[in-house]
Amino acid sequence: MAVPTVKNAAGREVPLEINGRPATPFMGVGKHKPTGHRYGPPVPSCSNFPSDGNKVVGSLEEALRLCGLSDGMTISTHHHLRDGDLISNRVFDIASSMGIKDLVWFPSASFPCNDPVIKYLEDGTINRIEGSMNGPLGRFVSEGRMKGTAVLRSHGGRVQAILDGEVRIDIAVLAAPTADSYGNAKGTGGKSACGVLGYAKADSMYASKVIVVTDNLVDLPCYPMEIEGNYVDYVVVVDKIGIPEKIVSGTTQVTKSPDRLLIAEMTAAFLEKSGILKDGVTMQAGAGGTSLAIAVFLHEIFKKKGWRSKFGFGGSTRYMVEMLEKGQMGYILDAQAFDLDSVASVERNANHIPYPVFNAYNYHSKGNLTSMMDIMILGATEIDLNFNGNVVTHSDGYLLHGIGGWQNCLHARNVILPVPLFRDRIPVIVDEVTTLCGPGELIDVIITERGIAINPIRTDLIESVKDSGLPLKTIRELKEEAERICGKPSRPDFEDEIVAAIKWVDGTVIDVVRKLKPAKSADDGKL
Amino acid sequence: MAVPTVKNAAGREVPLEINGRPATPFMGVGKHKPTGHRYGPPVPSCSNFPSDGNKVVGSLEEALRLCGLSDGMTISTHHHLRDGDLISNRVFDIASSMGIKDLVWFPSASFPCNDPVIKYLEDGTINRIEGSMNGPLGRFVSEGRMKGTAVLRSHGGRVQAILDGEVRIDIAVLAAPTADSYGNAKGTGGKSACGVLGYAKADSMYASKVIVVTDNLVDLPCYPMEIEGNYVDYVVVVDKIGIPEKIVSGTTQVTKSPDRLLIAEMTAAFLEKSGILKDGVTMQAGAGGTSLAIAVFLHEIFKKKGWRSKFGFGGSTRYMVEMLEKGQMGYILDAQAFDLDSVASVERNANHIPYPVFNAYNYHSKGNLTSMMDIMILGATEIDLNFNGNVVTHSDGYLLHGIGGWQNCLHARNVILPVPLFRDRIPVIVDEVTTLCGPGELIDVIITERGIAINPIRTDLIESVKDSGLPLKTIRELKEEAERICGKPSRPDFEDEIVAAIKWVDGTVIDVVRKLKPAKSADDGKL
Repeated sequence: MAVPTVKNAAGREVPLEINGRPATPFMGVGKHKPTGHRYGPPVPSCSNFPSDGNKVVGSLEEALRLCGLSDGMTISTHHHLRDGDLISNRVFDIASSMGIKDLVWFPSASFPCNDPVIKYLEDGTINRIEGSMNGPLGRFVSEGRMKGTAVLRSHGGRVQAILDGEVRIDIAVLAAPTADSYGNAKGTGGKSACGVLGYAKADSMYASKVIVVTDNLVDLPCYPMEIEGNYVDYVVVVDKIGIPEKIVSGTTQVTKSPDRLLIAEMTAAFLEKSGILKDGVTMQAGAGGTSLAIAVFLHEIFKKKGWRSKFGFGGSTRYMVEMLEKGQMGYILDAQAFDLDSVASVERNANHIPYPVFNAYNYHSKGNLTSMMDIMILGATEIDLNFNGNVVTHSDGYLLHGIGGWQNCLHARNVILPVPLFRDRIPVIVDEVTTLCGPGELIDVIITERGIAINPIRTDLIESVKDSGLPLKTIRELKEEAERICGKPSRPDFEDEIVAAIKWVDGTVIDVVRKLKPAKSADDGKL
Repeated sequence: MAVPTVKNAAGREVPLEINGRPATPFMGVGKHKPTGHRYGPPVPSCSNFPSDGNKVVGSLEEALRLCGLSDGMTISTHHHLRDGDLISNRVFDIASSMGIKDLVWFPSASFPCNDPVIKYLEDGTINRIEGSMNGPLGRFVSEGRMKGTAVLRSHGGRVQAILDGEVRIDIAVLAAPTADSYGNAKGTGGKSACGVLGYAKADSMYASKVIVVTDNLVDLPCYPMEIEGNYVDYVVVVDKIGIPEKIVSGTTQVTKSPDRLLIAEMTAAFLEKSGILKDGVTMQAGAGGTSLAIAVFLHEIFKKKGWRSKFGFGGSTRYMVEMLEKGQMGYILDAQAFDLDSVASVERNANHIPYPVFNAYNYHSKGNLTSMMDIMILGATEIDLNFNGNVVTHSDGYLLHGIGGWQNCLHARNVILPVPLFRDRIPVIVDEVTTLCGPGELIDVIITERGIAINPIRTDLIESVKDSGLPLKTIRELKEEAERICGKPSRPDFEDEIVAAIKWVDGTVIDVVRKLKPAKSADDGKL
C-alpha cells in the first residue's frame, strides 16, 4: 500500500507517514515551530539498583536479557569507536541467537565494520536502520532490500529526535573506553581510547535501559563523567571494545593531490581577502584531506598576522591541536577526536574541552554552537544551481553517506564548500541535487579548483572580494565548465518506492531516497 | 474544607491532597514503586534564540517579563549563595511591583537573608514556599499564616519532584558566580564564588524558562559548564549577586565546647573500634562544629594508620581539603563548598570534583551515591525510642530547619548521629519525635556525651564493639538519663490544620507539621 505523499516547501515529494508513524513535511528553514513537551523516559527507582553501586553483570548477553530485549525494540549505539567498533555488531549477533526480530538499529553513525549486520537485515532480526549507511549497507537500502524505511538524520537531528520522543530508545548499548562499576564513563584512558563520548549523551539520558560496555574498569569515580552512572542500568566488562588502530588514525593527513591543495589554498585566500578571517574568529572544519590542508594554510595566516581563533569546534585533529598549543586557538570544543594527537590533547589540555553534540547541534534547543561559528568548512557530493546541497547520495542515486553534522553546520555565519568540480569525471555541480539535504539559502560559497561561486544572496561577500583577483564565477558557469569537460551526467533511474527519508534539523522531512531500478545488464543494452 | 487524611505506613496521619493535588502516603522504605515517565519541559527551538548565542538582556525585570512571569507560577532559585544571596528576594520585589499574585517559591533552601519575603507571603505575592524554612519564616508557617501548605523535601527529593513532574518549574532564576552570554555557568571565579552549583542542575534542565544572573560575565566558553547554556533562555548581568563573606565563611571552625568535643572523640573512637573505619572507607560529614571535630579526629587516625579514604562527599570544608591534599582522601565529590579553602580547592585540584545532588541524592534514579557511603555523620533535633529522627521541628513544635540532604544520607551503610543529650535543657532523645523525617530502621548509632546507643537491628555493630569499653547504653537509658536531668519535656499543642507536608525521598508523605495553638499569655496562666 502506497503511503500518501505531498510536495514540501522545498518542492520535494515526501511521505506523510514513515514506518507507520506520521511525518511532517519540511516547511522551510526555521519555519517549523515545535509544540508539546520533551520526552521523559520511565521513572527509575534506587530500590531496583544495588546499594553498593556495582552494576557489573557477567556478559553483554546477560545485560540485554536483563534489559528485556524483545521484538521490535529500538537499540542505540554510538560511533566513537568508528571502524574499530567491536560492540554494535555483537548486540545483533546476540539478538539473532535469541531469535529476536524486527529491531530498529539507531546508531549515531555506521562504518564499514558494520557491514555484517546486512545478514540481520536479511533474516529479519533488524527491521531497519535509522542512521547513516555507507558502502554495502547503502547499496542494500538503495536496492530496496531493507524491510523498513531508513531514516537519515543529522547528528543534531538525532538528538532532537531522542529528546522530542520521535525515537524512543529501548536499550542504549554504549561502549566506553573507561568506566566504573556504577556506569560513569569517559572516552579517554585504557587501550581503546577515542577521546570523547559526545554522541552518547542523549542516548544515556533518554533510553529506557542503558548498558555501558568497557574494557577498562576503574574505581569510582571515573571522571569526567561524560556518561553519568545515574542513567546506567548495567555495566559489562569485555576484553576489547575496539581495535585501537581503527578507532583513531595514528595521524590525520593533509591531501597530497595538487587539485585539492589548490582548492585549499583558494579557500584560505578567499577567507583572508573577504575579511571573514580575522582575529578572534570561530571556526570548524572536518578531518578530510582538503579540510586539513585548509587548516594548515589558515594556521600560517594566523601566525603571520599574530591572530588567534577564539575557539574551534571539533572533530578535532592534530592540526587544531597544534593551533591550540602554539597559541593560535583559544579553545577546542570537541565532540569527537579524529587522531591520536587529539585524544592525547583532550586528556592533557584543560582548554581542549569535551562539548557534546547534544549542546552543539540540536535545533530544538535554546541555541546551538553552530550558529556562532564564523567559518564552517563542509563538503558535499552534489551542489546544484540553487546552491542546494546533497551529502547522502551520489549522482548514480546510491545511498552512500550519512548526514553527520552537515545540516547542523549549515547554520554557521559563513558556510564554505571547497569541492572539486568533478570526481571520477562526474560533475559535483549539477542542475538539481539528486537528494536535497541542505537548502541553498544556507550555503554561501562554493570553492573549486576552477573558480569560486558565491551565493547571490550573500551580496556582502560578493562585495567584499570583488576586487580581490580571486577567480569568481557564477555557479552556472562552474556547472557548464564541468559539463564541458565531463559531459552532461546521466540521471539515476528510480522506482516509486521510498527506501529512506531525509530529515531536516527540526525533524521535518526534507527529501527521500527512492529505490533504484535494477541496472540493465550489458546484454540488455544491446537489445 | 478539611482535606481527607489517612494513617501512613509509619503511623502518621497524612493528607491525601496537598495544595489541591493528590498526595501519596509513605508506604515504607523502598516500598513505593514509581510508574510512568519523567517530566519533559516544553520543546524549545533555536529559531527563537539569537544565532550569535548572546542571550544577555538589560535587567532581571526584563528577563522575568520576557519569561512571561504571571500569577500562580512556580519560581525556583538555588541556595549556593547561602546567607549572602542578593537575587532570590529581588525576584519577588519585582513580582510584587508588577502586581503578580500567588507565586510558588521553590528554593533549594532558604536562609535568614530571605526573611524579607514574609511580606510577600503576607500580601499574596507568594502563595507558599516549597522548601526549607528557618527562623521567622518557620515561625510564620507554624503559626498558620502562609496561604498555601508548605512542602518540605530533601535535596534529593527536590530533584525527584522536578524530574517526576510533581513540581513543574515555570521560571528558574539561577545566580551564577561566572557565566558567559550563552548561559553556560559555574560556581567558581569572580567576586561571588561559591565553589560549585550542584543544586541548580535539575532546575536548569527541567524549568520551562531559565534565567542566569551573574556578576562575572566571561567570554564563551565558561567552563566547566555546571549549568549548560543550551537550557538557558536569558542572561542578566548585575553588579553583585551576593555578599562574599556571607556566601562562604572565611574558614569553618571546629567546636570549642567540651561536651561537643567529647561527642566527636567518642564518635571517632566508635568508628575505629567498630571496624567501620578502615583503609578505603568512603565518608560524609557536615560543616557543623561537631562534624568538623570528628573530621579532625578521623584525619589523625588515617595518618597514624597510613590509611586513605577512597572519597569523601561534600559539602566540602577545609578539613576535607586538608585530607585530600595530605593524601588521606582520594577524591572530594562535591555538591557545595562551605568555606574559602574549599572554593579554592575546587578551582585548583582535579581530584576535587563537582558532583551535583542530581547524581548523588535523587532516589528516583538508577542508584545514588549516598548508599555507597560507609560512614555518614548526621544531626537531628529529636530522636525517639524507635530511632526515628526529626530535623525540621524542635520539641516546641516550631518549624525550624529544612531537611537538606538528611533523608538522602540515611541510605548510607552506617548512619551515625552524634548529638548532645539535651539542648538548652530540652532532651534530644524523646518518646516519639514531634515530626517524623526519617524512619528509625535507617538510623544506626546515636552518640551522646553520656553514652552510645546502637539500633538493635544492627546486631553486627553491637557485636563489633561489645568488648570495646565504649559507654554503650540503650536508647531508653539515654532518654531516661536526659529526663532525669531536664525533666520530662512538655509536648507542643497543635491545632488540626496542616501547615507543612514532609516528603520522603520517593515523593510520598511521611509526616506533616500542624499549626501551633496560640501560646497562653502569662496572665492566662494565672487564671
